[in-house]
Amino acid sequence: MVKIPKSHPRYWSLYYREKVIEGMEKGMTAKAGLIAHGRGEAFDYLIGEKTIEPAERAMRAAVAKLLLAKHSVISVNGNVAALVPKETIELAKALNAKLEINLFYRTEERVKAIAKELRKYDPEIELLGINPTKRIPGLEHERGKVDENGIWKADVVLVPLEDGDRTEALVKMGKFVVTIDLNPLSRSARMADITVVDNIVRAYPRMTELAREMRDYSRGELMEIVKSYDNGETLSDVLRHIRGRLTRLAGEGVWRRKSLD
Amino acid sequence: MVKIPKSHPRYWSLYYREKVIEGMEKGMTAKAGLIAHGRGEAFDYLIGEKTIEPAERAMRAAVAKLLLAKHSVISVNGNVAALVPKETIELAKALNAKLEINLFYRTEERVKAIAKELRKYDPEIELLGINPTKRIPGLEHERGKVDENGIWKADVVLVPLEDGDRTEALVKMGKFVVTIDLNPLSRSARMADITVVDNIVRAYPRMTELAREMRDYSRGELMEIVKSYDNGETLSDVLRHIRGRLTRLAGEGVWRRKSLD
Repeated sequence: MVKIPKSHPRYWSLYYREKVIEGMEKGMTAKAGLIAHGRGEAFDYLIGEKTIEPAERAMRAAVAKLLLAKHSVISVNGNVAALVPKETIELAKALNAKLEINLFYRTEERVKAIAKELRKYDPEIELLGINPTKRIPGLEHERGKVDENGIWKADVVLVPLEDGDRTEALVKMGKFVVTIDLNPLSRSARMADITVVDNIVRAYPRMTELAREMRDYSRGELMEIVKSYDNGETLSDVLRHIRGRLTRLAGEGVWRRKSLD
Repeated sequence: MVKIPKSHPRYWSLYYREKVIEGMEKGMTAKAGLIAHGRGEAFDYLIGEKTIEPAERAMRAAVAKLLLAKHSVISVNGNVAALVPKETIELAKALNAKLEINLFYRTEERVKAIAKELRKYDPEIELLGINPTKRIPGLEHERGKVDENGIWKADVVLVPLEDGDRTEALVKMGKFVVTIDLNPLSRSARMADITVVDNIVRAYPRMTELAREMRDYSRGELMEIVKSYDNGETLSDVLRHIRGRLTRLAGEGVWRRKSLD
C-alpha cells in the first residue's frame, strides 16, 4: 500500500482509495469496483465529505426497519469487503442480521477472497452466499444468484454500493430495500425504499451506534420512525444540499483559487 | 470486453467504462486512472451527459488559441489512449499539433503500450515523449519528464484529464494551458487558462469539427475569440448549470423515477 502522510489534506480519501486498490489486489474487488469507487469519491466531495442531516435521518429509519425485521440480511460485495470488513460484522451483530456475500461480477475466487477477509475479523462468523441456489427473477444467471437462507427469504435487505438493476429487482420481489450510495441520482438511490446518501466508511459505524441505542426502543417507537420517514424528501434534501454548496462556489468563483471549502 | 446490450439505458457510459478497463488490461491505464474515470462519470451524470453551452464556448476559444499557436502540443495519457486514440490523432492533424505521450505514473511499458495503441490508427504518426530529456520545474523526477521538442518548447499545450499539480506547474512555466476535465472544481479545472468541462469522448470530435471550420478564420478573428473568452465565467456557468439541474430534480423529486433528464 502506498504510504500517505497523515498531514495530507485529503488523507482519508486517499487512504480508502488505496484500500479499494488493495481489495483488487487481494482478488475481492472487480475492476469496475474501482471505477464505482471513483464515482463515490466525486459525490462525497460534492457533499462535503461528512454525514449530512438527510443521511442521518435515513440511517435512523433504516436501523428502525432492520430492527423490526423478521429476517434481515446485509449484503457484502468486493468494495464493501475492501472498505469496511470489520464494521460490516459489527453492524450485523448489532442488528442481529445475517451476512450474505453477493456479487455483481460473481466468481468463486472472489467469493472465497471476501470470506477470507471477513473471517480475519471473526473466524466464527456465519457467511451466506457461498453456495447460492436461488435466483432473483428478471436478472441474468450469475447476477441473480442469492442464498435460500439469506436474501431469498429476507423481508428487509441492506444492499450497500449496489447496482441499480439489482436494487430494482429486489424491490420488485417485495423486499424492503435499504441502500448506501453516495450518488443521490443513481438508479439504486432512486429505487430503494430507504437511501442513505453517505460514505459507507462513515455510515456503518454510525448505524452500529444507532442500532445499539435503538435496540431498547419499543416496537411502536420503531414503527413510528419508519412510518414518518419519506425517502423522496430525503433525496431532494440531499440534492438541495449539494446545490447550496455549488451556488456558493459559483458566486465566489473558483478560477485560480488555491483551495475550496 | 464485457458485452453490454445496446438497449441498456446507460449503454455509452458502460461502454466507455469497459474501454478504460480494457486500457488497463492493455497496460496503458493505471489503477488510479480507473478511479479517476469514475470521478468523471459522476460529474458527467450531474452535467446530464451532454455538451453544455459553457463547454462549447471553451472549446471554441481553445481551438482558436491552438490554431494561433507557434508550437502546440497535445498530451496523451493512459485514459486518453483508452478512450479516444483515433480521435486524438484526428484532432492533432486538424490543429497541426504535435502529440506527446506524457504520464503521471510513467513506466516504459505504459509508454510503449500507448504508442502501440495510437499507431494502430496511424502507423506513421510522430509521437513525442518516448525519450523525454527535460523536466518541468517543481515536480518530482518521473512526474516532471517532458520532451524537448514537445511540451518543453510549446507555447500552447492541451493536457486533457490531467493532474492538478502538473497543470499548475505548466501554467507557472508560462505555457498557455488548455484542459478537458469533467470536474469543474478540480485543481486542473481551476488552474488551466481554458477549461473544457465535458467528456473527452464528446469534446474531441467536436473540437476536430471546430478546428476544420475555424482554420479559414483570419488571425484577427481567432485573436478576438480568445480575447473575449473568460474562463472564470465559464467555470461559474458550469456550476450554475449543475445547480439548476439539481434544483429542478429536487423540485420534481427523483424517488422511484425510472429515468432522469
